[in-house]
Amino acid sequence: MYNFNSGPAVLPAAVLYEASEAVLNFNNIGLSILEIGHRTDWFVNVLEEAKSLVKELMQLDDSYEVLYLHGGATTQFMQVPMNLLNEDETASYCDNGIWGSKAIKEAKLFGNVHIACSSKDQNHTYIPKELSVPQYSKYLHYTTNNTVEGTQWHFIPEANVPLVADMSSDIFSREIPFSKFSLIYAGAQKNAGAAGVTIVVIKKDILGKVKRQIPTILDYRTHIEAKSLLNTPPVFAIYVSMLTLRWIKKEGGLREMEKRTNERADLFYETLDSLNLFEGKVDKQDRSLMNATFTTKNPGHEKLFLDECKQNGMVGIKGHRSVGGLRVSMYNALPLSSVQALCDLMKDFDEKHG
Amino acid sequence: MYNFNSGPAVLPAAVLYEASEAVLNFNNIGLSILEIGHRTDWFVNVLEEAKSLVKELMQLDDSYEVLYLHGGATTQFMQVPMNLLNEDETASYCDNGIWGSKAIKEAKLFGNVHIACSSKDQNHTYIPKELSVPQYSKYLHYTTNNTVEGTQWHFIPEANVPLVADMSSDIFSREIPFSKFSLIYAGAQKNAGAAGVTIVVIKKDILGKVKRQIPTILDYRTHIEAKSLLNTPPVFAIYVSMLTLRWIKKEGGLREMEKRTNERADLFYETLDSLNLFEGKVDKQDRSLMNATFTTKNPGHEKLFLDECKQNGMVGIKGHRSVGGLRVSMYNALPLSSVQALCDLMKDFDEKHG
Repeated sequence: MYNFNSGPAVLPAAVLYEASEAVLNFNNIGLSILEIGHRTDWFVNVLEEAKSLVKELMQLDDSYEVLYLHGGATTQFMQVPMNLLNEDETASYCDNGIWGSKAIKEAKLFGNVHIACSSKDQNHTYIPKELSVPQYSKYLHYTTNNTVEGTQWHFIPEANVPLVADMSSDIFSREIPFSKFSLIYAGAQKNAGAAGVTIVVIKKDILGKVKRQIPTILDYRTHIEAKSLLNTPPVFAIYVSMLTLRWIKKEGGLREMEKRTNERADLFYETLDSLNLFEGKVDKQDRSLMNATFTTKNPGHEKLFLDECKQNGMVGIKGHRSVGGLRVSMYNALPLSSVQALCDLMKDFDEKHG
Repeated sequence: MYNFNSGPAVLPAAVLYEASEAVLNFNNIGLSILEIGHRTDWFVNVLEEAKSLVKELMQLDDSYEVLYLHGGATTQFMQVPMNLLNEDETASYCDNGIWGSKAIKEAKLFGNVHIACSSKDQNHTYIPKELSVPQYSKYLHYTTNNTVEGTQWHFIPEANVPLVADMSSDIFSREIPFSKFSLIYAGAQKNAGAAGVTIVVIKKDILGKVKRQIPTILDYRTHIEAKSLLNTPPVFAIYVSMLTLRWIKKEGGLREMEKRTNERADLFYETLDSLNLFEGKVDKQDRSLMNATFTTKNPGHEKLFLDECKQNGMVGIKGHRSVGGLRVSMYNALPLSSVQALCDLMKDFDEKHG
């Protein structure tokens, strides 16, 4: 099968084999990874290795803490402002897609939101290059890659306030200066593992500044104190994330991931632009290297093309239900050969129906 | 190995085999359970089967909704009062152990807490039989089984207010009239699957009565509307829970689970009471059928005994770090033969060192 799912998505085969084995017998201890206590050395070693790999891949120093939390990025939409924003204060948000809009909605429950930029006027088909960020903003929040719309920030916005980013769909796909950020979060189910756990990276100096009483499970500080073991963590999801990060490191780290990201995206977009029956949906300069959104120029061709994909074992090519069209997700674990197979099919389709 | 872990804990071998296979190839579709979209029919069928098995095992009608949520029971400690209790209202709580106390702490952030009963005077070694529940209480909350202290409620408290129960460590271990409860929650990692997901069962008529604005991800109503697919759910953890519930049903349902629960507990406690060197820690009538806490009368014997357990492949027998001593957890998937092996070892120890 060729797996172009947007997330949960394709994982490295080596990770799947090791995870499958661990469900029966973890590290040859005679117990399943699903049956061991989360405070045993067995699991604590897994958790610590995962956290340390996150820091190593991001090249971050000890002013940062890595947490593995429950709840998905959607929980972070409210947990970020709950921990960082007082009721009478303002945070700036970039409004560039469905996930950013959801983050804005939750932030408004906790304080004032200033919209630093918006691409709503063009259905989020581009990334604005000009931002307005008042200096009194407690932070600037943006979504580095818009999984649904297929756009991606290819620059880090300049703002003299702490940067907070939802990197759910492009984390670990490229080398960027992660130390420019004060808080990074990402659901693991794209480039960092399977569904069920969220990575949160926090520069500690931004915490402890809000007045409200935060429920224990939502307070980043209690999780930092408890080293991500405040309550029973999602053991297996953390284990799979650790295996995935190990794989990234072994393959050559973020430099190698970025090379592959570019190879996949170049191949796909060059093919797309060379064909008559398909077209991209967003501004070329803002195209996502992870999620390519496109359409058939003739709407009648869409179902035909999707049927051909299905017949050829290609899954995950239907666009998000909120925007329609077509979408191809090309995460770290997707082999270039899968993109090649899809491109061949598209060329073939173009010739046959053109 | 004999697995007496308190949670994450022993799972049925058949569940582990099927889960291991699904990590490589789910239902023979050629993709891993970790790689499929959560809105595909493949996963929606898993989720719907899991929810319907919960309802079937609990014999609940359509006035109840079943949710599979992120965050563990610890998240429910604050999510319950956030959804059910206005600031100027009162909820009654039973203070019978470490988990109940944590629930009380979080509830106080949202409204007034009345302590309906407490066993603090005796280090939570018994279950109070008298409760004070003011009729203006929005609900009465209690923890049906105290994993750490080793006590269990063998009756359902009478109160003319909605009942809310944390059943994390004894759910699906016995037949009880679940329809007496308005809200039941349980981390899955004991009797209902692996770590990483929480089952919440809600009688719908208790919702929609609070004035505060609830963040989207914490509002039970949005999860009900979204059928537990508000955001990417912990796919694998839900799958393992579904397999575990299927296993319970196939083995004979809660009637059979209760029979086995009693067999295991009877064997263990009869042995315990017959020996000279060991003693139970809690009132006999309130002993937990899931988690038996005990000690060696001679404190010097404890390490010796734990070493012998280890040599014989028995894990998870050390008491919780907050109370010390010894503890044996005997969940649904623990074979009677494991309890027998432990009892034999204890008898042997008693003879050797007595």
